[in-house]
Amino acid sequence: MSLDPVKLTADLIRCPSVTPFEGGALQLLEGVLGAAGFACTRVDRNGIPNLFARWGEKGAKTFGFNGHTDVVPVGDAAAWTHDPFGGEIHDGVLWGRGATDMKSGVAAFVAAAVDFVLQTPPEGAIVLTITGDEEGVGHDGTRALLDWMATEGEAMSVCLVGEPTCPNSMGEMMKIGRRGSMTFYIEAEGVQGHSAYPHRAKNPLHALVDLLHRMTANPLDNGTEHFDASTLQITTIDCGNPANNVIPAKARTTVNIRFNDSHSGASLTQWGEGLARVVEAETGVRLSIRTEISGESFLTPPGPFVELVARAVEAETGLKPELSTSGGTSDARFVKDHCPVLEFGLVGQTMHQVDERIEVAQISQLKAIYTRCLRDYFA
Amino acid sequence: MSLDPVKLTADLIRCPSVTPFEGGALQLLEGVLGAAGFACTRVDRNGIPNLFARWGEKGAKTFGFNGHTDVVPVGDAAAWTHDPFGGEIHDGVLWGRGATDMKSGVAAFVAAAVDFVLQTPPEGAIVLTITGDEEGVGHDGTRALLDWMATEGEAMSVCLVGEPTCPNSMGEMMKIGRRGSMTFYIEAEGVQGHSAYPHRAKNPLHALVDLLHRMTANPLDNGTEHFDASTLQITTIDCGNPANNVIPAKARTTVNIRFNDSHSGASLTQWGEGLARVVEAETGVRLSIRTEISGESFLTPPGPFVELVARAVEAETGLKPELSTSGGTSDARFVKDHCPVLEFGLVGQTMHQVDERIEVAQISQLKAIYTRCLRDYFA
Ligand SMILES: [Zn+2]
Ligand SMILES: [Zn+2]
Repeated sequence: MSLDPVKLTADLIRCPSVTPFEGGALQLLEGVLGAAGFACTRVDRNGIPNLFARWGEKGAKTFGFNGHTDVVPVGDAAAWTHDPFGGEIHDGVLWGRGATDMKSGVAAFVAAAVDFVLQTPPEGAIVLTITGDEEGVGHDGTRALLDWMATEGEAMSVCLVGEPTCPNSMGEMMKIGRRGSMTFYIEAEGVQGHSAYPHRAKNPLHALVDLLHRMTANPLDNGTEHFDASTLQITTIDCGNPANNVIPAKARTTVNIRFNDSHSGASLTQWGEGLARVVEAETGVRLSIRTEISGESFLTPPGPFVELVARAVEAETGLKPELSTSGGTSDARFVKDHCPVLEFGLVGQTMHQVDERIEVAQISQLKAIYTRCLRDYFA
Repeated sequence: MSLDPVKLTADLIRCPSVTPFEGGALQLLEGVLGAAGFACTRVDRNGIPNLFARWGEKGAKTFGFNGHTDVVPVGDAAAWTHDPFGGEIHDGVLWGRGATDMKSGVAAFVAAAVDFVLQTPPEGAIVLTITGDEEGVGHDGTRALLDWMATEGEAMSVCLVGEPTCPNSMGEMMKIGRRGSMTFYIEAEGVQGHSAYPHRAKNPLHALVDLLHRMTANPLDNGTEHFDASTLQITTIDCGNPANNVIPAKARTTVNIRFNDSHSGASLTQWGEGLARVVEAETGVRLSIRTEISGESFLTPPGPFVELVARAVEAETGLKPELSTSGGTSDARFVKDHCPVLEFGLVGQTMHQVDERIEVAQISQLKAIYTRCLRDYFA
């Protein structure tokens, strides 16, 4: 008797767990895991639902999984081919919000863990950390679980995050780290004036163009051993001056950087501040910078844990997964402060889109890969 | 018996002729001029009031004056020391909206012209073109007067505009030309995307920063014989993207240029379009440019007319006026297509401000200068 991860994914899709709503998803998992002997604890914080589940003894050698049951909104509901909360299967494809990101991933590791402890109980422990807020601000999601675990003396020896990681084919890519992410919020304050008399004014837009040109003129780096080059994107510039004969007093911009391990939030802050001071001195426009560091870059370097997961992927899919650090952020950025963390999941092509869907075969394959990881880890 | 330009200015200030309202100002002048034998015609167009007045024969050698009776709004009325429409005189200073810009100028040339034709009727003609919309869009102000004159066979041999031209001391500056003014309205359209995957997007803000940096990196020129260097000001950049993980699809900017006689609206349009094509080719972002040419630069080069006015200024004030082309635009930009045009008026320090005011002595001095211009012109 084994737990069907496809049916479990479909059941989870039927839970309308759009961030920050629990939607019945964690309750469903708590039932399944509790029945298999997992000690379950809801670790809700500030209204965000989170589930901690452990099989085995606290303090033992522990394989951890991390994932989320919350999903992004459905967008234009009328544009969906099938009910986004229907969990319908047509021609071997499961449709619905969360089909790839990542109710399937959660279902696959829950099914793998339940079957594994029932069929071949290991010497050690398995911990599942499942949050209801990965898609939102995330302040009280996986972070709340990790905070609570630290307080309770709970730990994972290693952790595998079940986010979709494969661009096109199942098995082709795993993530061994992530770039960091930070944002500059820059306000420029000059002196208002008339366009015909610029010598009496100080144009904040000229200062911003100068600063932004310095920020974008050269690449931040050319990549490192395990990372692509860092990237910088201006995400907005705003002034709102309607009069073409007026030099405005103020303007603002936002700049987002995805950075590799040759930088840190602190080093980039210093870099940006340094450029701003040069432009200030040249233009007389005051540049105030606030920075928000969403996450530092991190890396779980190739080694036994990476090899274990990579071998499991290759055994089940025939593909040697690329060891990537590309893409956006994930909750792995929080986990990495506690234990080595990797990410492997299915093909995420339709994630966050209308008609999100996944071949059911991929879900079963993912369960098999996770099962093999558990078997090899406790062997 | 002579016409007091101070009293006439005060009477005009009491007419609330905020653009586009006539406020009784042109009616008042029509009465004064008609009584002195001027043939007056209201040349209103699209609701904008304008007054044409001629003494003498059509087709004769004609000295022209140009000015406006409309004024900008009073702004914060409570902040005024004296009623902005009161025309009050305190300690030799006349207070009110239009005291400098330019009911005083109009009153001075009307008083000069009326006294002159009554006392020493010249062989020739005097034409006054007075508009009720110089401060607004100006489509139907002095342009309407000039259009109507062309149709009617009316003309001015030379024209003196009575706008305030002196920065600090009465007599120190006259305008022999003006820079041109044009505006670029630039829209950038790229491809929206996620900040973490910039290679899949095309950031319109990076294209704008590139373009604007090219536009501002070097001065447009270093000035010419009679003109200061041209200036370029970015007056707004707007995008309105609230999400720092989103690369926006669109952004826009506005750029205003005040240019000298080494450029034209057409040459600058070509320059801007050329830079945009380079940036488009480099970035793949589409840059659409609309240009608005408010006025070309123009110059009435030093010669007999300039000398006549300059000598009159020097005789009455003791100052040799600087021959300037600085500052914003004026209706001289329309007149210059019809005849040589110069500008001379009083000190404009408080124009457009709360507590606009002028020493009454300057108004009398201005009338004396205009009278001397008429006398020397017809001598
Ligand atoms: Zn996800
Ligand atoms: Zn004016």
